[in-house]
Amino acid sequence: MVEWLASFGKSKNNGVTRKLYSYEWQCAQQALEKRIKKVGLQAYYDDVGNLFGRLPGTERNALTILTGSHIDTVVDGGKYDGAYGIIAGFLALRYLYEQHGLPKKNIEVVSLCEEEGSRFPMTYWGSGSITGVKSMDDVQGLVDLQNVSFLNAMHEAGFGQGKHRHPSRTDLECFLELHIEQGEILEREEKAIGLVSHIVGQRRYEITVVGESNHAGTTPMAWRKDAMYVASELIQLLIQRAKETTSGLVATVGQLQLDPNISNVIPGKVIFTIDIRHCEEEVIDEFSKAVFKEFQLIADKHKTDVSIRNWMNEKPIKMCEKLMGLSETILTRDKVPFKKMVSGAGHDAQMFASFCPTSLLFVPSHKGISHSPYEFTRTEDLEKGIQLLIKVLYELAY
Amino acid sequence: MVEWLASFGKSKNNGVTRKLYSYEWQCAQQALEKRIKKVGLQAYYDDVGNLFGRLPGTERNALTILTGSHIDTVVDGGKYDGAYGIIAGFLALRYLYEQHGLPKKNIEVVSLCEEEGSRFPMTYWGSGSITGVKSMDDVQGLVDLQNVSFLNAMHEAGFGQGKHRHPSRTDLECFLELHIEQGEILEREEKAIGLVSHIVGQRRYEITVVGESNHAGTTPMAWRKDAMYVASELIQLLIQRAKETTSGLVATVGQLQLDPNISNVIPGKVIFTIDIRHCEEEVIDEFSKAVFKEFQLIADKHKTDVSIRNWMNEKPIKMCEKLMGLSETILTRDKVPFKKMVSGAGHDAQMFASFCPTSLLFVPSHKGISHSPYEFTRTEDLEKGIQLLIKVLYELAY
Repeated sequence: MVEWLASFGKSKNNGVTRKLYSYEWQCAQQALEKRIKKVGLQAYYDDVGNLFGRLPGTERNALTILTGSHIDTVVDGGKYDGAYGIIAGFLALRYLYEQHGLPKKNIEVVSLCEEEGSRFPMTYWGSGSITGVKSMDDVQGLVDLQNVSFLNAMHEAGFGQGKHRHPSRTDLECFLELHIEQGEILEREEKAIGLVSHIVGQRRYEITVVGESNHAGTTPMAWRKDAMYVASELIQLLIQRAKETTSGLVATVGQLQLDPNISNVIPGKVIFTIDIRHCEEEVIDEFSKAVFKEFQLIADKHKTDVSIRNWMNEKPIKMCEKLMGLSETILTRDKVPFKKMVSGAGHDAQMFASFCPTSLLFVPSHKGISHSPYEFTRTEDLEKGIQLLIKVLYELAY
Repeated sequence: MVEWLASFGKSKNNGVTRKLYSYEWQCAQQALEKRIKKVGLQAYYDDVGNLFGRLPGTERNALTILTGSHIDTVVDGGKYDGAYGIIAGFLALRYLYEQHGLPKKNIEVVSLCEEEGSRFPMTYWGSGSITGVKSMDDVQGLVDLQNVSFLNAMHEAGFGQGKHRHPSRTDLECFLELHIEQGEILEREEKAIGLVSHIVGQRRYEITVVGESNHAGTTPMAWRKDAMYVASELIQLLIQRAKETTSGLVATVGQLQLDPNISNVIPGKVIFTIDIRHCEEEVIDEFSKAVFKEFQLIADKHKTDVSIRNWMNEKPIKMCEKLMGLSETILTRDKVPFKKMVSGAGHDAQMFASFCPTSLLFVPSHKGISHSPYEFTRTEDLEKGIQLLIKVLYELAY
């Protein structure tokens, strides 16, 4: 079923490109809709294009247990990111329905319209709309690279005009998301399942080092204010400090730019980004504060200037302990090796976590490769995740 | 006269843009030609567009003492780079002629057509043609950014079709070039004149560090092969080693590029340039060898690969000691503060040095700024250079 879903938006490199409201996106949702109906589940959309498959509960006024993930992908992404959580939910609902009939509570699988932000400068549009964090106001004026407006794309795909129910929900008891790890911790440690306790907080900075641009031949070493030399010392310090922490904090310099960028001119300015992540905000705070204090000392030592701009600050998100405990009990009983861990990447689960009890479950990613045609998880690992999801849903809904 | 010459090709920023064979270049050469004739000197071009002003010697079969520099500039360059050496030569010849009449040996001032390479991918075209290092074969097929061929541009300006004498010379006794320092050693040390003993050799490398690109959130610090982290350690090492040398060696990382260059992705590859200069080739050899050995160890330590490609290798050039000695004697006698130094930048003098005895003389550059509208040398400093040139030419030719 992974290959089947990946056929909608298949790229030349055998990856998947399925951007929000695109033709490929529409084909994938419509194909899923058909498949949901075919197995006897109810299918419906909400007005932003989230697709639901519903197994109605027998109890009066029953609340809904929701599971699923996102249908959109990055450009030339993998077959598992997002898609796996939808397929797993669908297969779990079908199995439960076939084996146990209707549950007491409603169970729904959701194919969330968007999470990646790969078409418009907007992320978590699907989960944000359900949880009331995002609304139509947030997408006014947004355009994609082809200058197509968000609203037009939405209308073209048949959404955003009140033909479907409003996306916000008041009936959710909890949300469960099954996802590939996108890291290689589970594979390296030979665990089948990751029980996510937190999604890390992310802090991003832009660091600007200003020295003095000069002739590479006529400026003696002692007189230089070489911004690249200073930047390299800052990067060394940052990464070393991050390596020294035992708390699991990670720090990355992913982007860097010299000015001018000419082989025979001493760089006068260097701008680089820092991405820092940890599951506790205070740890990020303390780490950044200590490192930036040292940055200042280093810049002063070289008679250069350093300025630090914080441009992203996503707080860490705690998942529901009780739901995680339920998975833990099941896995311990079934003797399936698992690991409690934090997620270093963002997921739809983080939008739900402050809205209703939420659980995020990982299966291994081969070599940790993700957002790439080389993304891969073995079938037996995929199956173990689905087994767990079935058992958790059964406990919660029947 | 500096301002007068700078008026041909004046840019919006009050800089000068005078590219080879351009309209501005033609205007400047023609204006100089007129001025040369006006003071009673002979004026002539050679077939690549070098313009000469000649004060003929009275001796039979007299050799020629040549002085001058280049008339072309970089885009939005300064008023002094190149131009000063031509103006100084012109004023020196006029003075000598007025005060002392005809010399025994021929003295010529040359306005060399090109040195900077700012229009075509070709440098030292003027001096290279005189010294026989360059010929028409070297410019076949070259085009500028507007796709104008070198040969067409040359023909349009009236050169390259045999209307003028062939540029190569057999009558040169020596070449003297007066130039701004383009560094701030003379200004900082309060010296009026720099006597250049060598033009440094330049070695340029491209360094490629290959690690492993990975997710900035899901990859623990200990498992990373962060190419930027490794590159920053290499840069730290390189610059520190260069600072430790007491020999005047300089090393610069001027260009650097990450792959991918995305804030939330660990860089898998970093490519950067190294520019190393010194007046002795063995020093560059030993330094590079030692540093690159350490590069390998660092890359190995981080389980990454480093590859090193040498893409430029200009040998150091020694100037004529005897000519330098003559300047030294004059300056010592006149109590003018001077410094023996190496040139960190390339000059026309380096083309002449292996062809005939050559001397390169510097005057201070304010703050070392060059190739910029802010290039500046005080009039009194310019005058001291011309005084010296007059005295040296007198000693050599009268």
